[in-house]
Amino acid sequence: MRKKMTLIFSVLLFANQLYAQDSLMIRKIYDEALVNGKSYESLRVLCKNIGPRLSGSANAEKAVSWSKKLMESYGFDKVYLQEVMVPHWVRGAKETAFIVDGKNRIAVPVAALGMSVATPEQGLTANVIEVHSIQEVEKLGEQAIRGKIVFFNRPFDPRFINTGQAYGGAGDQRFMGPAVAAKYGAVGVIVRSLTESLDDYPHTGATFFDQHGKNIPAAAISTKAANQLSTLLKMRKLPLIKFYFKQSCQMLPDVLSYNVVGELTGTEHPNKFITVGGHLDSWDLAEGAHDDGTGVMQSAEVLRIFKALDYKPKNSVRAVFFMNEENGHRGGDKYAELAAQHQEEHIAAIETDEGGFTPRGFSFEGVSKDFIRKVNDNWKGLLNPYEADRLTIGESGTDIGPLKDKRPGIILIGFRPDSQRYFDIHHSSNDVFENVNKRELELGAASMASLIYLIDQHGL
Amino acid sequence: MRKKMTLIFSVLLFANQLYAQDSLMIRKIYDEALVNGKSYESLRVLCKNIGPRLSGSANAEKAVSWSKKLMESYGFDKVYLQEVMVPHWVRGAKETAFIVDGKNRIAVPVAALGMSVATPEQGLTANVIEVHSIQEVEKLGEQAIRGKIVFFNRPFDPRFINTGQAYGGAGDQRFMGPAVAAKYGAVGVIVRSLTESLDDYPHTGATFFDQHGKNIPAAAISTKAANQLSTLLKMRKLPLIKFYFKQSCQMLPDVLSYNVVGELTGTEHPNKFITVGGHLDSWDLAEGAHDDGTGVMQSAEVLRIFKALDYKPKNSVRAVFFMNEENGHRGGDKYAELAAQHQEEHIAAIETDEGGFTPRGFSFEGVSKDFIRKVNDNWKGLLNPYEADRLTIGESGTDIGPLKDKRPGIILIGFRPDSQRYFDIHHSSNDVFENVNKRELELGAASMASLIYLIDQHGL
Repeated sequence: MRKKMTLIFSVLLFANQLYAQDSLMIRKIYDEALVNGKSYESLRVLCKNIGPRLSGSANAEKAVSWSKKLMESYGFDKVYLQEVMVPHWVRGAKETAFIVDGKNRIAVPVAALGMSVATPEQGLTANVIEVHSIQEVEKLGEQAIRGKIVFFNRPFDPRFINTGQAYGGAGDQRFMGPAVAAKYGAVGVIVRSLTESLDDYPHTGATFFDQHGKNIPAAAISTKAANQLSTLLKMRKLPLIKFYFKQSCQMLPDVLSYNVVGELTGTEHPNKFITVGGHLDSWDLAEGAHDDGTGVMQSAEVLRIFKALDYKPKNSVRAVFFMNEENGHRGGDKYAELAAQHQEEHIAAIETDEGGFTPRGFSFEGVSKDFIRKVNDNWKGLLNPYEADRLTIGESGTDIGPLKDKRPGIILIGFRPDSQRYFDIHHSSNDVFENVNKRELELGAASMASLIYLIDQHGL
Repeated sequence: MRKKMTLIFSVLLFANQLYAQDSLMIRKIYDEALVNGKSYESLRVLCKNIGPRLSGSANAEKAVSWSKKLMESYGFDKVYLQEVMVPHWVRGAKETAFIVDGKNRIAVPVAALGMSVATPEQGLTANVIEVHSIQEVEKLGEQAIRGKIVFFNRPFDPRFINTGQAYGGAGDQRFMGPAVAAKYGAVGVIVRSLTESLDDYPHTGATFFDQHGKNIPAAAISTKAANQLSTLLKMRKLPLIKFYFKQSCQMLPDVLSYNVVGELTGTEHPNKFITVGGHLDSWDLAEGAHDDGTGVMQSAEVLRIFKALDYKPKNSVRAVFFMNEENGHRGGDKYAELAAQHQEEHIAAIETDEGGFTPRGFSFEGVSKDFIRKVNDNWKGLLNPYEADRLTIGESGTDIGPLKDKRPGIILIGFRPDSQRYFDIHHSSNDVFENVNKRELELGAASMASLIYLIDQHGL
């Protein structure tokens, strides 16, 4: 009996010591991020000195070489590029659009959707049919749709607490709406910007046409313009109201680009990996500050913090700046492909691509309830003082997604910052450095470094 | 045995039904706030049509009558004013300041501290002594301090996760620094703005002199200017560096003003009260959007939501727009005094004065660990889907504070939104409507309505 008691006591004591040690390390991680953080200044340079960096653009290539140098300056064990061919879509001249209300022309803030085609050179004018879903287009059928501009106008559902869910709920209009409308003979598509904010910014983003389908011009208009158009359509009835837009975007041949990878090599298991990453490419309308400059700068910061604290991970920890998340996710595919090819063992991957806002926690993709209960039992208490302790089952991210099949057994994790402001700026010209808060950015980096430290020490 | 089992089963069933009913009601509260919310538009009017509203000012009186009309338009059971005499401090002409570096004059963003006195008409020039704490002033003593401008320059400690704690840690320099420096013969005081943000905004705020002490001119300078002055002081040494500032603020006689109170009268216990409130007055430099326009608009919104849902509280629920939180908290004192005078029974009071940011939870002042454990056991699960479930022991607020003594047994609660951005704009000209996010504001109102609903139904 005494022996057993001693054993239990020893185990408890050991557990307590471990807990105290982890707690101390996490405090050090936060202190380093908040006192000596480098992510904010790096983000300023990325946003202000490089700026928009759509896949295939000259700026994207500048961002690649700058990122490599940045990681090298941090002194990571390895820094290298992964070649990947990426699509090269260009917007061309600034778009114009207006509502034609009889003899009145009302200017409308507009932006071509990524991967869309141009209108005829003189622009495109047609009657408008307002719909609220893809199903409605299918129901209306060719007779109603042919020759018209289809106007997708289903707003965000404000009742979702996490705005990502509202985006998911409205997003099919942009992702697939144009392709479906084309099938029924539409000549063009305009989509209400995917944001809850009522403002004058068009929010772009990719739309997808299958190879055999017809590609028609598709653009996003601002939410205010969408409301105005909808009101006029109700007041005036067709055919008084027409819509005009002109865009000159085009697809160019694929371009060689790169993922940028930095690594701290594991002291015990160099061939086991924990990845943290975001995407280096951005839309062309702004600086890609929150989408996803913050994500890449946080990923590099995680490794920088470990270096600064002289923490040598047991497993290899990688920061990956993925290329081409926005219109193809070829970088994510390539990373998984190479991981498989090199027979790397992947423990976990964390994606940070929901903005550099105050961290709330992490979501673990496809894990069991038992798994998440254990994660909470073990680590929630450690993360609670930093208010980044919401550990739930949920989605992870586009770039790390392909690892699921290529590296079975991996745990995919999504970094979950506060979601309220993300879609106000998402894919619009408002996604600039000035809208990033230094502390929120740093807290995010610290929360990811803490989780990776725990995974590195204790496994998953 | 069967009887006992049946009893247990019934109790569980009843508990489950109650839980389901509460859960449903909270969902309705959030839906109403997010779909039909009025707080954002009301805040716009308060900020843009009225604007700054320092106690005693004409704008503060405009805000009082507008607020009363707003509450009346919402159809509350009672809407009335509580008379309260408030201090009337005025800033006068815009301040000027510069660092005198030999023959160079470097302009400095400056704002007089509230309740401070003017400099001589031609301004005040003196040698500067930089200190980092009140203790340092006391240690240096009269010989070092006399005739000088004392420059308090202790920055926020960035390691605090909640910025309110960093404010608390640096705040004594502004609150009491000038009075202490005056005791040792200082001719003026400048204080590093109480913000972690490195920018060009001076952040004002009240400073306090005791009645018998000497009142000397005191002002806040921007954090960037503070860094510059500190660097120059180190480089050049005294007496090459002097500081000049000029302000013409003054105290005028007290003015009659008002708290604005709206009430839904309790159907079962009309003389038992749950209060939710913020302060209607603001500093004069900006619109008082987050401090505390959001708080008052949320408080009214709580009652509006109940009305809209036809929820008739058992106890009386009051929204209180307190006057004069910023430089005297006479409104808070008056509310407590009248509550005692009318022998009202007060169950709980919630204060919302930390900005209209995404809610994280609530802190309960001075309660026991058992109490907070019970609150968590009962309600955390209900608030968890809305991510406003951090229920902790902590501070409440300045305006409801006096209720503690006047109405013993009351539970004081602080609304806790995300704290990261608050001190970036706090008491500066940057505290404007544009920096408030509609959803964050609405989620805060919904979280408070939910907690008040639970308190009304189940007590505390």
